[in-house]
Amino acid sequence: PKESGSGKSDMDAFVNDLMSKMTIQEKIGQLNLVTPGGGILTGSVVSTDVESKIKNGQVGGIFGVYGPEKTRQAQKLAVEESRLGIPMLFGSDVIHGYKTTFPLPLGLASSWDMELIEKTAQIAAKEATADGIFWNFSPMVDISRDPRWGRISEGSGEDPYLGSQIARAMVKGYQQDDLTRSNTMMSTVKHFALYGASEAGRDYNTVDMSRLRMFNDYFPPYKAAVDEGVGCVMSSFNDVDGVPASGNKWLLTDVLRNQWGFDGFVVSDYTSVNEMIAHGMGDLQAVSALALKAGLDMDMVGEGFLTTLEKSLEEGKVSEADINLACRRVLEAKYKLGLFDDPYRYFDDARPAKDILTAENRKVAREAAARTMVLLKNEEQLLPLKKSGTIALVGPLVDSRNNMLGTWAPTGETRYAVTVKEGFENVVGESVNVLYARGANISDDPEFAAKINVFGPKIEIDERSPEAMINEALAAAKKADVVVAVVGEATEMTGESSSLTDISLPECQKKLVRALAKTGKPLVVVNMSGRPMTIGEENELADALLQVWHAGVETGNALADVIFGDYNPSGKLTATFPRNVGQIPIYYALRNTGRPQDGEQFTKFKSNYLDVSNTPLFPFGYGLSYTRFEYKELVLDKSTLTNTDEIKVSVSVTNTGNFDGEEVVQLYVRDEVASITLPLRELKGFQKVFIPKGDTKEVVFTLRAGDLAFYHSDLSFSAEPGEFTVFVGGDSNASLSAKFSLE
Amino acid sequence: PKESGSGKSDMDAFVNDLMSKMTIQEKIGQLNLVTPGGGILTGSVVSTDVESKIKNGQVGGIFGVYGPEKTRQAQKLAVEESRLGIPMLFGSDVIHGYKTTFPLPLGLASSWDMELIEKTAQIAAKEATADGIFWNFSPMVDISRDPRWGRISEGSGEDPYLGSQIARAMVKGYQQDDLTRSNTMMSTVKHFALYGASEAGRDYNTVDMSRLRMFNDYFPPYKAAVDEGVGCVMSSFNDVDGVPASGNKWLLTDVLRNQWGFDGFVVSDYTSVNEMIAHGMGDLQAVSALALKAGLDMDMVGEGFLTTLEKSLEEGKVSEADINLACRRVLEAKYKLGLFDDPYRYFDDARPAKDILTAENRKVAREAAARTMVLLKNEEQLLPLKKSGTIALVGPLVDSRNNMLGTWAPTGETRYAVTVKEGFENVVGESVNVLYARGANISDDPEFAAKINVFGPKIEIDERSPEAMINEALAAAKKADVVVAVVGEATEMTGESSSLTDISLPECQKKLVRALAKTGKPLVVVNMSGRPMTIGEENELADALLQVWHAGVETGNALADVIFGDYNPSGKLTATFPRNVGQIPIYYALRNTGRPQDGEQFTKFKSNYLDVSNTPLFPFGYGLSYTRFEYKELVLDKSTLTNTDEIKVSVSVTNTGNFDGEEVVQLYVRDEVASITLPLRELKGFQKVFIPKGDTKEVVFTLRAGDLAFYHSDLSFSAEPGEFTVFVGGDSNASLSAKFSLE
Repeated sequence: PKESGSGKSDMDAFVNDLMSKMTIQEKIGQLNLVTPGGGILTGSVVSTDVESKIKNGQVGGIFGVYGPEKTRQAQKLAVEESRLGIPMLFGSDVIHGYKTTFPLPLGLASSWDMELIEKTAQIAAKEATADGIFWNFSPMVDISRDPRWGRISEGSGEDPYLGSQIARAMVKGYQQDDLTRSNTMMSTVKHFALYGASEAGRDYNTVDMSRLRMFNDYFPPYKAAVDEGVGCVMSSFNDVDGVPASGNKWLLTDVLRNQWGFDGFVVSDYTSVNEMIAHGMGDLQAVSALALKAGLDMDMVGEGFLTTLEKSLEEGKVSEADINLACRRVLEAKYKLGLFDDPYRYFDDARPAKDILTAENRKVAREAAARTMVLLKNEEQLLPLKKSGTIALVGPLVDSRNNMLGTWAPTGETRYAVTVKEGFENVVGESVNVLYARGANISDDPEFAAKINVFGPKIEIDERSPEAMINEALAAAKKADVVVAVVGEATEMTGESSSLTDISLPECQKKLVRALAKTGKPLVVVNMSGRPMTIGEENELADALLQVWHAGVETGNALADVIFGDYNPSGKLTATFPRNVGQIPIYYALRNTGRPQDGEQFTKFKSNYLDVSNTPLFPFGYGLSYTRFEYKELVLDKSTLTNTDEIKVSVSVTNTGNFDGEEVVQLYVRDEVASITLPLRELKGFQKVFIPKGDTKEVVFTLRAGDLAFYHSDLSFSAEPGEFTVFVGGDSNASLSAKFSLE
Repeated sequence: PKESGSGKSDMDAFVNDLMSKMTIQEKIGQLNLVTPGGGILTGSVVSTDVESKIKNGQVGGIFGVYGPEKTRQAQKLAVEESRLGIPMLFGSDVIHGYKTTFPLPLGLASSWDMELIEKTAQIAAKEATADGIFWNFSPMVDISRDPRWGRISEGSGEDPYLGSQIARAMVKGYQQDDLTRSNTMMSTVKHFALYGASEAGRDYNTVDMSRLRMFNDYFPPYKAAVDEGVGCVMSSFNDVDGVPASGNKWLLTDVLRNQWGFDGFVVSDYTSVNEMIAHGMGDLQAVSALALKAGLDMDMVGEGFLTTLEKSLEEGKVSEADINLACRRVLEAKYKLGLFDDPYRYFDDARPAKDILTAENRKVAREAAARTMVLLKNEEQLLPLKKSGTIALVGPLVDSRNNMLGTWAPTGETRYAVTVKEGFENVVGESVNVLYARGANISDDPEFAAKINVFGPKIEIDERSPEAMINEALAAAKKADVVVAVVGEATEMTGESSSLTDISLPECQKKLVRALAKTGKPLVVVNMSGRPMTIGEENELADALLQVWHAGVETGNALADVIFGDYNPSGKLTATFPRNVGQIPIYYALRNTGRPQDGEQFTKFKSNYLDVSNTPLFPFGYGLSYTRFEYKELVLDKSTLTNTDEIKVSVSVTNTGNFDGEEVVQLYVRDEVASITLPLRELKGFQKVFIPKGDTKEVVFTLRAGDLAFYHSDLSFSAEPGEFTVFVGGDSNASLSAKFSLE
């Protein structure tokens, strides 16, 4: 990224000069990140005495303060009332949009549209900076192969290649390669590392995997963000190879800085330094010293650095050089952001009204939402529905404004969200007779509801009995030509601290779907969730099944756009949908066993289960369209690749259906023989292409030796010569294949 | 172990001399292990032309041949018709008894009785050698924390310390420190390594974990077997750190031989060398060379060595030294077994009748079976039942001879098994009116039954309707004072290639238990299974719940002994019973998170699930008695331990109930602060003690610094100074605690 002033030497000179004036206390102060509270907290503590700490030079950054006026006031305390006047960083979690809330990240990923994803990040940066926020704790790029884990919703799914592309797109969107602009913000890639592999899908749980798996399957998106110039890295809550990430020198220094060349700063997650006490790493002084020496530069909220580093310095447990290094990195970030030129540059009172939640931004949100929806089933082309006749629109998520934004949208506001009911009215209000019925609660269990409603009412249990609600829905269904049932999760059933051991629909909703199916009316099931769910029964019962995630402020409009064919769905799953929870972890890039089972039929002494097939309900990359795409003529321009040339893989894709549409053309590669066990196929390329009905498009991919590289047992990275198979198609089961060899 | 002749120098001289006469083909022949077929195979191939291969010196060992006559015949071919007359090894899977089938290993482990376990192995060796078998593919010591995995039944459960003690007991039982005796057999520890960590509990699946976890949690039982002098190690099917075990030099040479000092030979699992082709390691020649060079000495059935090593030698892909080394190890094993003194020493026609399935052996089997049963619940002291009145004995496993032995008892014979019905008749035939009803099928699903019945009829679906069967059971229940329902798994629902994603009772059995509970009659549920099951509902419905595994030939007698109080149950679980499959993996030795939840109550932003507690249904180490044990006065004889002394931990255990009984007193240690995240508690000692009712026993444990050692990030092994907490009690939740420090 571009830097303020005329480059690194100027920055060095500036920071050297500033640091020469700083006391050790002031240096430690720069490592302290506070939150004054008032917002939604993700830990049990908030910072105290924030104002006096700022004045005392004890605060390097702050989050949870919004709006030009408040942020300006806070910055003034630092700039005008602290001894050296060093400006603060203003941060926030802007995960999927600022006020213009976009679909949750797992949904956005399902668009496979890198331009779109970058654009959502760019808009988020523009809105956030208009409100005084210029440091974002996003993107979260944690690979996860466990839909029990609630935060799978906040990431891009299971695949390192796709995850890396999305990581790059988001960092680029936030930073725009130019941190000095007032409408770009510094991005933080998180949670470094492996947070998505929390054991048993239980949030914050221990993580264990081989280094080989880290480097090949879980690290790539973090590295991609670093390669894209991300300004900040956030350490994760979990342990990595036996040492909590926030105190893991191998991770934060050897890998991140020495191997990957990261030159920004590392911030802890919320009190994650302190939490190393519970991990068994020692008392607050010990874990703070451990973190600093590991390469962690800024301590979020817990104030272990602020309260113990001086003592550790006196006792020789950290060195002044350790403190200087961390302080320098924080100051460099401020320099790159141009804060030393103008500490108030992001605090423009005129911007919020001009930049936030604009019609233009909402338009992007609506397009984005439509593009995240994944059509899983569409028997007899039931969808799109005609804009005529009578539709029974039923389900607990039809008129549920509080559940549209999706989890972890702390800067969003539910009041701006368009419900499904409103979306239908907006799109077909005049022409279609829409009969509405709630049909079921999201859950009938008040105890469960209380856990979900910690941030406000997400599950509201109706005063009527479940039977009365179903009966109302059935009455509507009987009058209708077609039934659209919108079921699924409340927003806070996914996200942080929202892990589930059962990822099927709550029983009351299952009953609703069963009852609706029994009516014999054509049934569209819309599943709204933040995670892959085990919806095999609903898939059986429904004529059409649409996965829509929680799609942000424009959810209702976008869903209506898709249901009625104003947008032909093009989303593809980025996380495998299991048949049942007992299949977890299940993902497409499985390594082969020595006893692979061919096909679906159980064979004794092959790798399988007695009670369920090895295949998922819906595989990675899967998603239908209202039209059909046929793949033909997979051609390679050569059969042998060398280290210096490239191979062109071309395929012809024909839209043979009755709608114009977009297709995500996916390329997978299998390395037939290698020194380690490798996945049976790995995504190595994709292109989202628009093909008018009847047209054919030739899609061309380029493969180089570097695309075939992987980390070996000794953690070196290269491709191994030998035979490869390339598969191209519309999902991870793509059957069109060709072979080539690498010399 | 003692060696034949006068020690290593004699052996070296003998083997050197012999090898000097051998052609390269004959050396390769020694590395070939064949099976002539006819038994139950665990792979898809059998060896061909066995007789001619033996004559040609192309067979080092054989398995699947039983009885003195047949084994003698086969050995004669080798000794009298091959050029050098080198005798063969005769092997078999003698997993939990030979003909006197003992409870399956997970059950035996639940006895926590090392003397008993050693005795069962000793008896197995005596019976097997009487039948001409002197090389056993046992013990399996794979730690498993995933009850989906079918082979969890074949191991000792989840704990490395307990697993290590059991590994030692079994090796000792088979080998008796003296391989030259004709009633001891060479033991093989398997499956090296990590087979129990098959991903998603799917058999043969890929395995991934950190080396830290390998060394601390999964390797100890293998190492314990090596330390006990095990003669052979079997490589596992799975990959270890990216390389299949059978071709993993780090595993088979660096760790096993160089670090642990193993000096026996390594045999592959059934065609596991060949199966490296499917793992993506190359063609048969390549994987065979890979295996040999990795340190694998004998190739089971696949004949990759036999058919390709000579070519690889010619092409320089293996060296003559590689072949010599493997050949030497095989010949050394034969030497140690005394085969060169007398190749026919195990083939005594008089022995089978004298040694096999004796009354004495069956008596041990009955005692062992009773000692493996785990009492999980006993409301109002319903058990033991009186030997009077009327009992309804219902359930599909009451009169099911084919399901008593337990999985993988290929040398056992179901006809010798005592059913539950017979056991009841034997124990209380005269005095109790026992009303029998089947009540339900094990499963109503013919397709499922077909998968289970590959080795014979285990699930036999009744001609009657499920309703008729339940009604018959209810009629019996109504006439009875108490109902005993024997439900659970058919034997082949666990074991190899018997993984399940749903580990609850089959629905038809759930219905039976529900119907029986509704009668209001006191209900004893006996759950017979090879794995921990999710039996929370049954636990709620039952007044008493007894976990009995598949307990071998004496299952019925032993169960009646326990039910009627002739034996007071003392078993303790060695694998955690989860509440649901979504909690997996769940085990007691969890590492702490940074955000531990205190107690059962859900707290936001703590590590937990929204829908189920963090605790299991039944924890590791848990098991009730008909009496009660009270723990008091936990006393340490010092508060500070040094590297050279020891600490005595004593506790007073009082039998406060009305029965004499045995208790497994367990000692757990927590290392409060360490350089890596460690389990919150780890088993470090246990003693099974008999305490007459009313008596108190002081139980004393000794801890040394070495007991507190663990593998650090650099894989060095030592204890770290600091604070420790010791917990003593009757299960892994033991609350009595004391602190000490290590200097």
